[in-house]
Amino acid sequence: MSGYKVYGDIVSGNCLKVKWTLEALQLDFEWIETDILKGQTRTADFLAINPAGQVPLLLTPKGRPLAQSNAILLYLAEKHGGGLLPEKAFERAKVYEWLFWEQYSHEPYIAVRRFLKTYLGKPEADLDPKLLERGLAALTRMERQLGDAEWIAASEFSLADIALVAYTRAAHEGGFDLHAFPAVKRWIARVEKRLEIGAL
Amino acid sequence: MSGYKVYGDIVSGNCLKVKWTLEALQLDFEWIETDILKGQTRTADFLAINPAGQVPLLLTPKGRPLAQSNAILLYLAEKHGGGLLPEKAFERAKVYEWLFWEQYSHEPYIAVRRFLKTYLGKPEADLDPKLLERGLAALTRMERQLGDAEWIAASEFSLADIALVAYTRAAHEGGFDLHAFPAVKRWIARVEKRLEIGAL
Repeated sequence: MSGYKVYGDIVSGNCLKVKWTLEALQLDFEWIETDILKGQTRTADFLAINPAGQVPLLLTPKGRPLAQSNAILLYLAEKHGGGLLPEKAFERAKVYEWLFWEQYSHEPYIAVRRFLKTYLGKPEADLDPKLLERGLAALTRMERQLGDAEWIAASEFSLADIALVAYTRAAHEGGFDLHAFPAVKRWIARVEKRLEIGAL
Repeated sequence: MSGYKVYGDIVSGNCLKVKWTLEALQLDFEWIETDILKGQTRTADFLAINPAGQVPLLLTPKGRPLAQSNAILLYLAEKHGGGLLPEKAFERAKVYEWLFWEQYSHEPYIAVRRFLKTYLGKPEADLDPKLLERGLAALTRMERQLGDAEWIAASEFSLADIALVAYTRAAHEGGFDLHAFPAVKRWIARVEKRLEIGAL
């Protein structure tokens, strides 16, 4: 056993990123299912280990808590190798760029629309139109990037592919039609194959 | 000359982070003022180097573009040392955690309210109440963290302090009263002194 524990909600892309990275690194871990909709990230016990009240949360073998999905990915990749981060400084920095872009310009639209529609059952008319507009802008940017690149950030598969595929492959659940993004669809299939996960 | 060029808007906290990090590392650079409100991040020339249409943008001495403020900070700190990133893996990961938290749970409320109020001149009544509520939640979390810590993420001053101070010190311009956050105010003064920048 590697000794890692993950508090995560299995339907959350941010949590799945951590699961897939641990699996890609062939590390055993204990998964502690934590249901966001049931308020399990807001209990006193959970807030004591993550004051931000968010999953995923990684507990290291020494019991130290680490939050923020993409920070956990970087920690695991640095600590355990596995080739998920390029060795050259600038190429690695491009992975960082896409990880921050994912959290700022992709997840708040693509993941949030999915959460509101699929998990909270909100009708389309109640959704802020910006969510659709900016989500489409994010997919359009990815389509251009993947038009002549196999992987999103680097010449090899990297953490950026894991981070971005999590919500992109579920974008249809947020009302985004991926048929308009053929290069993105082909890339999703490549990443799913690489991670050995089935198609959604 | 280090050969770095920065496209940045001098009133943007995200751009100032990059300026301060280059200065902390004692690196010369050329600053290319790029006014967001005048649409200078949306010109064809700019979009050719940053398809995301955002500043800051770093051009390396080889002319390679790197976007996303916190990715640029990580790149510079890795490349040039300077002690802005802890050497121990877990402590460094806590810096990553705060950098991602800043972009996801702080900037979208504290920086966005400032932009809407101070730069776009929007009246309070037109602002989404969530911006105030979530901005206060971010400041409350920082206040707790800084109650018994000198620096935000690590035992030493780090990139996380640079990233978080940028918009926190300007929070009053977004209508946040920092008098309710005395530990945050003391930390701002410490970081400003360390960066050798005057108080706002």
